[in-house]
Amino acid sequence: MKQYVIGIDFGTLSGRAVLADPATGEILESSVYHYKNGVIDRFLPGASTPLEADTALQDPDDYLDVLKFTVPWLLEKTGISPAQIAGVGVDFTASSPLPCHADGTPLCKDPQWRHNPHAWVKLWKHHSAQPEADEINRLGRQRGEFFIENYGGKYSSEWFFSKLLQVLHDAPDLYRACDRWIEAGDWIVWKLTGHEVRSQCFAGYKGMWVNAYGDGWAFPHPDFFLGLSPGLVDLYDRKLSMKLHPLGTVAGHLCHEAAHLTGLREGTPVAVGVIDAHAAVPACGVGGPGKMVMIMGTSTCNMLLTDSYRPVEGICGAVHNGILPGCWGYEAGQSAAGDMLGWFVENGVPESFAQKARAQGLDLHSALTRDASALRPGQSGLLALDWWNGNRSTLVDAGLTGCLFGLKLSTSPPEIYRALVEATAFGQHRIFDAFESSGIPINEVYACGGLTQNRWLMQAYADILGRPIFTAATEHATALGSAIHAAVACGLHRDFPAAIDAMSSLNPDPFIPDFHRHARYAEIYREYSVLYDLLGRHQLPTLGQLRRLSE
Amino acid sequence: MKQYVIGIDFGTLSGRAVLADPATGEILESSVYHYKNGVIDRFLPGASTPLEADTALQDPDDYLDVLKFTVPWLLEKTGISPAQIAGVGVDFTASSPLPCHADGTPLCKDPQWRHNPHAWVKLWKHHSAQPEADEINRLGRQRGEFFIENYGGKYSSEWFFSKLLQVLHDAPDLYRACDRWIEAGDWIVWKLTGHEVRSQCFAGYKGMWVNAYGDGWAFPHPDFFLGLSPGLVDLYDRKLSMKLHPLGTVAGHLCHEAAHLTGLREGTPVAVGVIDAHAAVPACGVGGPGKMVMIMGTSTCNMLLTDSYRPVEGICGAVHNGILPGCWGYEAGQSAAGDMLGWFVENGVPESFAQKARAQGLDLHSALTRDASALRPGQSGLLALDWWNGNRSTLVDAGLTGCLFGLKLSTSPPEIYRALVEATAFGQHRIFDAFESSGIPINEVYACGGLTQNRWLMQAYADILGRPIFTAATEHATALGSAIHAAVACGLHRDFPAAIDAMSSLNPDPFIPDFHRHARYAEIYREYSVLYDLLGRHQLPTLGQLRRLSE
Repeated sequence: MKQYVIGIDFGTLSGRAVLADPATGEILESSVYHYKNGVIDRFLPGASTPLEADTALQDPDDYLDVLKFTVPWLLEKTGISPAQIAGVGVDFTASSPLPCHADGTPLCKDPQWRHNPHAWVKLWKHHSAQPEADEINRLGRQRGEFFIENYGGKYSSEWFFSKLLQVLHDAPDLYRACDRWIEAGDWIVWKLTGHEVRSQCFAGYKGMWVNAYGDGWAFPHPDFFLGLSPGLVDLYDRKLSMKLHPLGTVAGHLCHEAAHLTGLREGTPVAVGVIDAHAAVPACGVGGPGKMVMIMGTSTCNMLLTDSYRPVEGICGAVHNGILPGCWGYEAGQSAAGDMLGWFVENGVPESFAQKARAQGLDLHSALTRDASALRPGQSGLLALDWWNGNRSTLVDAGLTGCLFGLKLSTSPPEIYRALVEATAFGQHRIFDAFESSGIPINEVYACGGLTQNRWLMQAYADILGRPIFTAATEHATALGSAIHAAVACGLHRDFPAAIDAMSSLNPDPFIPDFHRHARYAEIYREYSVLYDLLGRHQLPTLGQLRRLSE
Repeated sequence: MKQYVIGIDFGTLSGRAVLADPATGEILESSVYHYKNGVIDRFLPGASTPLEADTALQDPDDYLDVLKFTVPWLLEKTGISPAQIAGVGVDFTASSPLPCHADGTPLCKDPQWRHNPHAWVKLWKHHSAQPEADEINRLGRQRGEFFIENYGGKYSSEWFFSKLLQVLHDAPDLYRACDRWIEAGDWIVWKLTGHEVRSQCFAGYKGMWVNAYGDGWAFPHPDFFLGLSPGLVDLYDRKLSMKLHPLGTVAGHLCHEAAHLTGLREGTPVAVGVIDAHAAVPACGVGGPGKMVMIMGTSTCNMLLTDSYRPVEGICGAVHNGILPGCWGYEAGQSAAGDMLGWFVENGVPESFAQKARAQGLDLHSALTRDASALRPGQSGLLALDWWNGNRSTLVDAGLTGCLFGLKLSTSPPEIYRALVEATAFGQHRIFDAFESSGIPINEVYACGGLTQNRWLMQAYADILGRPIFTAATEHATALGSAIHAAVACGLHRDFPAAIDAMSSLNPDPFIPDFHRHARYAEIYREYSVLYDLLGRHQLPTLGQLRRLSE
């Protein structure tokens, strides 16, 4: 009986599942479910009190609906029987933690807590825990905690403990009522298997966990957390799990309820959860050092494997076995990429342009791309700093904001669109530079994700980076990565290299840089870099001051 | 028989005439004619070869059409007979020079030259003569020419001799064919009277003329121009007039052709021409020192009278008797104000916003103003540098470009609109600072022009400047100013103070600053000022580099 695997990718606005052939990586069918409550950033569902600025929540019921609506549809559409599904893998955005009761019930499902924003999933892009991140960084630096270096110099406001500390500060009663503080990616594995099994991947990249500390602790010493607040006294005993599970292993087997929800067979193996961007690495055919993977969507994640550890400024984290077993996995990233282009399309394109595009049968991204692609590098005189959603790498500062230089009365919307695209590529360039200046070479570049569908954009990235870029053949690279995790976990392949060989595939033609354009871009990149350091490191305090005045 | 005066204001996109009562300043009727060819910046009329970047030309026929269409309409509409019109005054944009044959025929009307862009009027905002302005400044500084100081340290690319030198460089044949190089404001007086009579106002502010040089020359010594190019040898003998006429005097009387064109009586007195912004000063009730007038339209002009001369950085010029007799008249200004808001409305407002505004029966400026006015100072976190069209005062650099700081994924169009308005007010603040730091006090502030119709904008200016602002009662202040010039020239009033007393009027309630908002704005202004100096003086060379790369 031919066997298949299912990979499920939980993203920012939707979840998508693929049913793949473990022998070839072929995706037989895919299915997307858009979260009903999407990103909750203005009002809680059914409520009318405005949420605080920089709030971004989600409803865990939306995740269950992904299971309920996508998996049965895959089976029905392909005619493949539940018995043929050898395993399920899941990947998830991170850090997107939620508070639960001891039985795994999210506090937002409890009528007592439902109206408290802190009872809901704090999505990765929830940014209001900056004061808490500042406290964590201050004490971490003072105590010389390893996580400071390991996370590139700063622990982010987007992450697990910043968000937990925010709950403790802002909703101490809710904090006390919370038995488990857990990444949504681990929570969904719990829902699938009926058991709480947390992944080394989430804990390693977002939760200060390392494979071993000198003093025997895999997490920071409890004194560190007690130094933050006496309220954290029960953190290790009650809220977390000390046991973390390696990638590519079985977390458990499908429980009765989950089998009912998905239409799969009870007992089907479920792989340990993985961060979404990390799942994409094997799907791009990358199993070893020197190959940079860019997962380009609303934001861009960078993934790089190395044989040994070196500190790098402004990375999100370096975790041994964190992306694939046997390597150090580095994560870095930009907090906005496609999001910035989306912002521009929604907020910056005039009616006249929209009407013309419509008359030509083009959506706005396509019409802007067409006009932007007709320009020469530098022609518009525009330059942007791509910080519409802060800067993750290399500055780790969610409070930074975007800037646009060179505006004229003749400046047109496609010129601005082009400047935004270029700025995100310049931001990538800085990330590449950070690795290479730390002695970690980048020999090849791979990309996947929604933005890779825009050929002109990819060419601009190749031109700006001055490197060929290979792209994943599938638009479902992340979900395919989860399917690869499933295939390894349930033993259909002996290890990741074998699974990658069999299941990954790239588009035949990489994007090759044009060196004339690269030379011109190199001049613009010098300007970008000067502004980046000046405004990004607050040598010129403008952006910080503007932020302070806006609060 | 009751007597009246007519004032005609030639602006950037249209000309407007008013018929006023010299006893009260009451405007009995007004009429606007929009130039058929508007601003010629892409193609010459009927041609398809694209014009160079930064070109801005006009068609002198459009000016004659203003006479032809507005004046007869005033007479017809009011029923006032031509015999009752005691005088005509005209004001004009500057510097907007054109090349003519000896009989006053513009070269662009000559089939031989019609297809050469240099045969047309170079409108004030024609910016491509920067290399020529650079040459003029280099040599002027080297020779210690007084105009360098007198023009605030720099002669502008927008002005008379920069544009003439560009003609000589780029179209030497046309330069040789040109008998007269003349401001359009003097040219229209020529067309009205049949005689070439140039004004001290245009020559003083744009043409390096001063009332007296030590060596007997009112213009720079011919050696200066010969140092620029031997081709300028016939400049004084052939292209210019050495005789310049004072403001408030009669330039001549309406000639037969002009009487036919306008329907006025042949022999009607015509006043010496005046720069548009300068005409507005008496219309705002300002006849003496310490009162800053802002003429706020597509760009903003600043006019200030003083008793004695002091050098001020980045002014456009200081001319004795240049605005009103008996005072030094200072001109300064911003090269974009309403233009920037217009750019935003045309290029930056999304369809969804436009549709909503339409459904509410609001134009875009009104809808943006309504939403922008609901914000607190600094709330959006945005800050702009208002250099979409370069910076006239205090930096005198047409190559500067606009910047926007503080963009976020949540940034909305009204927030940007507000930031642009604020930026133009911050730019005004710098101009005020330049005068006051040179020892010239500003005791009162007056405003007129299109932007004064926006009450929220005016309040923001008052809040940012921290000063009450009085506004002219008429929306036709400039044309009324020309009518005041006519009334003085033809003797209906004995002098300007008498005419101002009789004919000017202000709105009863000035805009009073809110000192809480002013205090908050003062913090933002500090940031604006740091960026202004850093980017505007090229300590950080970014904007210059971006411009160079775009060329």
